[in-house]
Amino acid sequence: MTEPLTRDELLAVELAELGQQLRVDAVRSSSAAGSGHPTSSMSAADLMAVLLTRHLRYDFADPRGPRNDHLIFSKGHASPLLYAMLKAAGAISDEELLSYRKSGSRLEGHPTPRLPWVDVATGSLGQGLPIAVGLAMAGRYLDHQPFRTWVLCGDSELAEGSMWEAFEQAAVSALDNLTAIIDVNRLGQRGPTRHGWDTGAYAQRLRAFGWHTIEIDGHDVTQIDAAYAEAAATVGRPAAVIARTKKGRGVAAVEDQEGKHGKPLPDPDEAIHELGGPRELQVHVPLPERAERPAPAEPAQPALPRYELADEVATRTAFGEALAALADVRPDVVILDGEVSDSTRTQAVAEQHPERFFEFYIAEQQMIAAAVGMQIRGWVPFAATFAAFLTRAYDFIRMAAVSRARLCLAGSHAGVAIGPDGPSQMGLEDLAMLRAVHGSTVLYPCDANQTASLTAAMADRQGISYLRTTRGSTPVIYGPDEDFPVGGSRVLESSGSDQVTIVAAGVTVPEALQAARRLAAQGIWARVIDLYTIKPADAPTLRAAARETGAILTVEDHWPEGGLGDAVLEALADDGGPLPVIRKLAVREMPGSATPAEQLAAAGIDADAITTAAAELAQAGRT
Amino acid sequence: MTEPLTRDELLAVELAELGQQLRVDAVRSSSAAGSGHPTSSMSAADLMAVLLTRHLRYDFADPRGPRNDHLIFSKGHASPLLYAMLKAAGAISDEELLSYRKSGSRLEGHPTPRLPWVDVATGSLGQGLPIAVGLAMAGRYLDHQPFRTWVLCGDSELAEGSMWEAFEQAAVSALDNLTAIIDVNRLGQRGPTRHGWDTGAYAQRLRAFGWHTIEIDGHDVTQIDAAYAEAAATVGRPAAVIARTKKGRGVAAVEDQEGKHGKPLPDPDEAIHELGGPRELQVHVPLPERAERPAPAEPAQPALPRYELADEVATRTAFGEALAALADVRPDVVILDGEVSDSTRTQAVAEQHPERFFEFYIAEQQMIAAAVGMQIRGWVPFAATFAAFLTRAYDFIRMAAVSRARLCLAGSHAGVAIGPDGPSQMGLEDLAMLRAVHGSTVLYPCDANQTASLTAAMADRQGISYLRTTRGSTPVIYGPDEDFPVGGSRVLESSGSDQVTIVAAGVTVPEALQAARRLAAQGIWARVIDLYTIKPADAPTLRAAARETGAILTVEDHWPEGGLGDAVLEALADDGGPLPVIRKLAVREMPGSATPAEQLAAAGIDADAITTAAAELAQAGRT
Repeated sequence: MTEPLTRDELLAVELAELGQQLRVDAVRSSSAAGSGHPTSSMSAADLMAVLLTRHLRYDFADPRGPRNDHLIFSKGHASPLLYAMLKAAGAISDEELLSYRKSGSRLEGHPTPRLPWVDVATGSLGQGLPIAVGLAMAGRYLDHQPFRTWVLCGDSELAEGSMWEAFEQAAVSALDNLTAIIDVNRLGQRGPTRHGWDTGAYAQRLRAFGWHTIEIDGHDVTQIDAAYAEAAATVGRPAAVIARTKKGRGVAAVEDQEGKHGKPLPDPDEAIHELGGPRELQVHVPLPERAERPAPAEPAQPALPRYELADEVATRTAFGEALAALADVRPDVVILDGEVSDSTRTQAVAEQHPERFFEFYIAEQQMIAAAVGMQIRGWVPFAATFAAFLTRAYDFIRMAAVSRARLCLAGSHAGVAIGPDGPSQMGLEDLAMLRAVHGSTVLYPCDANQTASLTAAMADRQGISYLRTTRGSTPVIYGPDEDFPVGGSRVLESSGSDQVTIVAAGVTVPEALQAARRLAAQGIWARVIDLYTIKPADAPTLRAAARETGAILTVEDHWPEGGLGDAVLEALADDGGPLPVIRKLAVREMPGSATPAEQLAAAGIDADAITTAAAELAQAGRT
Repeated sequence: MTEPLTRDELLAVELAELGQQLRVDAVRSSSAAGSGHPTSSMSAADLMAVLLTRHLRYDFADPRGPRNDHLIFSKGHASPLLYAMLKAAGAISDEELLSYRKSGSRLEGHPTPRLPWVDVATGSLGQGLPIAVGLAMAGRYLDHQPFRTWVLCGDSELAEGSMWEAFEQAAVSALDNLTAIIDVNRLGQRGPTRHGWDTGAYAQRLRAFGWHTIEIDGHDVTQIDAAYAEAAATVGRPAAVIARTKKGRGVAAVEDQEGKHGKPLPDPDEAIHELGGPRELQVHVPLPERAERPAPAEPAQPALPRYELADEVATRTAFGEALAALADVRPDVVILDGEVSDSTRTQAVAEQHPERFFEFYIAEQQMIAAAVGMQIRGWVPFAATFAAFLTRAYDFIRMAAVSRARLCLAGSHAGVAIGPDGPSQMGLEDLAMLRAVHGSTVLYPCDANQTASLTAAMADRQGISYLRTTRGSTPVIYGPDEDFPVGGSRVLESSGSDQVTIVAAGVTVPEALQAARRLAAQGIWARVIDLYTIKPADAPTLRAAARETGAILTVEDHWPEGGLGDAVLEALADDGGPLPVIRKLAVREMPGSATPAEQLAAAGIDADAITTAAAELAQAGRT
């Protein structure tokens, strides 16, 4: 005679059963797909079974509910596990589960927000936790909502520095609404991880960074349940559940073995049998408290700063002042800094709206990731640093596009025009980098009023917008009431008989205007276009100029590759007709230190160089 | 009657005097320049005075001496301090010191290897220590030389995740030949740092990562001296000297004050007076043991792998096999992995030459930084990961170009051609990113023999070379003895009456060839160019094609911006004459999961799409 199971024992059996179902479904979907990561899913199946059944507060019928918890799969390759959870929660059908990785399916190889229950795309390791930090900061400091953010991390990804930026930020921000679940399955892609099953190695590092740590057996559902409860009860600091697990758990052919990463199981039928066969458990995921969705903010027009014609103002200053004006009327605008707010000029906003200003110190990856996290909750993040240092976060920006995120980025100190600080501080590849982001908008204003207008426009733009600003002062050439639609350009000089077109943006616009005056004195008529939108470039205006003047000179404070010149070429090429004579002026040699004027001259992008090149082109266009 | 000073007391006075001289010279040079970072120099002056006089083993007359210690200013903005040290060591004159930040001076705003005593460019914070890890790894595991690597770090830069990648790697690699000197001056650019003067906060984190830590008063030369001795005597792990200092130390007008970052002192004469006036101390820097410079390796021809025509081989596989062959005959070739060696195929080399294979786990920034460090010592580093994940290290690649470093980078899994894994794993911006690196070489082979040839060529290339490889198999279309010079291209199809040119590379070459056959069946003659060198592109061949066929179609597995199409446009534009009709086929929509063939079709870059577009272009070119 056996004793009846206690209530807790019954629960443990049910949870273990759900874990097996998640494994079976991960095996099934990846086998149907012929690819995927079942073994990385199987190690975390018990961790997720307990979370889904007992701790996650989430209304699958209302994925944007303001009090829903958030769950981020930082180890995005464990997507079969996530999709198995969605099936268990009744969010997707078994048929859809088996569409995994097939053309047209929402169930991509790595999770993306094509699924309404996925906040962000993951799959580039080391990003989920930093994004979750942004979510948890939003919950604590912006939304003031009691949701919890859960992140499933791999052990391999703890090698990424971005994870340690996140651990540091989370602890300093006292994010006790954040729980990291670390699936220590000891095996990376090509072999053992650095620390193997030494969960203590991770725990000692995390504790030194200010986290509460809980080390458990990640296949013991009772330990898991208790660990989550302990994590949720931890006050004043974030908690990490560090779980020792086995990759491929439950199937002898793959369990804890090297060489089994990222491929379907060799004999799926046998594996499913070994796991106890398919199950059809449905989980009633705990619901969050009901809450009213906050009313969307009323659209309001900012009282943008106004600059007087012929004044000299740095565009970075105009950006900061316009952003402050925007933040005054847009309660959804938040500002993120990488310890350079005095240089990027977001300091003005920090003083006016400290509750919406977030300092990330010199951690650009965490800054961008937090912006991605905050926009999930409807905030409109402006993140600013030197244009050069945005290169530090390129993987995060790239992935933000996959996440369909809405980010406003600003890069200051663009180009050789910064002067004496030298090439390490010069953004000379930022236009190329940001143009090559799917669906991006790339703006490069030349004067203060234009900058103010474009800064305001960014807040209403979908996708990833980038504004490039200049360190030094440039003359105000536009009045404060002029309109600068995104995608437009301005023809600044034109006659009925232009022989050449000079296309400039930002710091080269004043140089181009000066060149045009000198050319006119030589009897050469030059059209000058201010291409303040680098992407999408104003193709009609450029094509008209090509047709009408027959020769195009582009001038940019950037390497020759991927910037303004390439944008112009692309716009002209897409026209379908023959192209005019085109020449690009750009920075071709490694700069050193010098004054801004010396730098522009040395790079061959100042008024002198433009005058000479445009005169040659006008001549060539005539012949 | 005062007692005479002891020998130690006398030494302390001399060291303190040198510290003051370094401060005075930092004040003088930045005042002469009108910009720079004197206050960040002054905090570390005593730390560097003791190092230069008592601990650094360095022959300034022979900066490439194999047993010289290395000194990296990770806080590169403290360049006035470095230059003051060079003057004190007799390496530069006072006149040159005062040329700081002026046009043409080697003394740039941030250090670069234009100075022979500077190994690498710094100025993007968080890079010096990871590079130093590479140097120390070379010393310990490759050179077997007893030099020590000293790194001066700022406290602000400890917020960068890359520093924690470096702390982790250094401890795991037991780099007791590496000493980090952390200048905790408590003030960042815009205000206090996260941890202020809490040196214990840094120490506890570093200890958790496996470092030996020594906390001192960074203005007490006796403590500094003892700390360096303790660091050098530490066995089995790296040591960090965590020094509490004052920014602007010694000048009341700026000492320990906010708002004094990155600008000359307000009253330099008064400051110099307060610091005790100029001094002309000359330091006899301790010399390293004499050592023979190792003889340069004899050039040897690798026995490259040979692939049979019409076989199907992935270019990533050919890369790995060619690299193994190269490593067999080139003892200077080293390989660096980001935990994907099974995917990038460098695993083959790992097995053959484990002593020259370095695993960095998933820490791409540290991987690239270590490559930069190793090449300082003459090694030829090949670093490989997925093309997509090189975006993680863009700032390091950008700075490596400023360092005039020689790197061989390989990015696998390029483009939508990877198939079902989805966009997070697809390199779709790598060509844009690598083209926009000064002096870079960008290679994109289409078949295995071409890949092998280009892999070997990279090892002899200066600057930063990038090889893009494909996940799936592609047909071998070239024989194993063909030559593929860097900067060249191949005309694969051509008749006397070509009506359109298709420019392809990598995975689109077989598609273009198939399209050409279909076009021929329709009576349309298409020239097909394999542009295996994206940068520098083969302008003469492209221009001849433009002239002779009048219409160019480019096809690439990459976003439309900055890649093959833009490279072709640039080459044609630079010709100075009118351009032909040009159209770019590229990936324009965000991909999902699908088979490789479905992906190419969906992106409109497969044989079908090429056929249609080329036929239209041929028509347009005729009209």
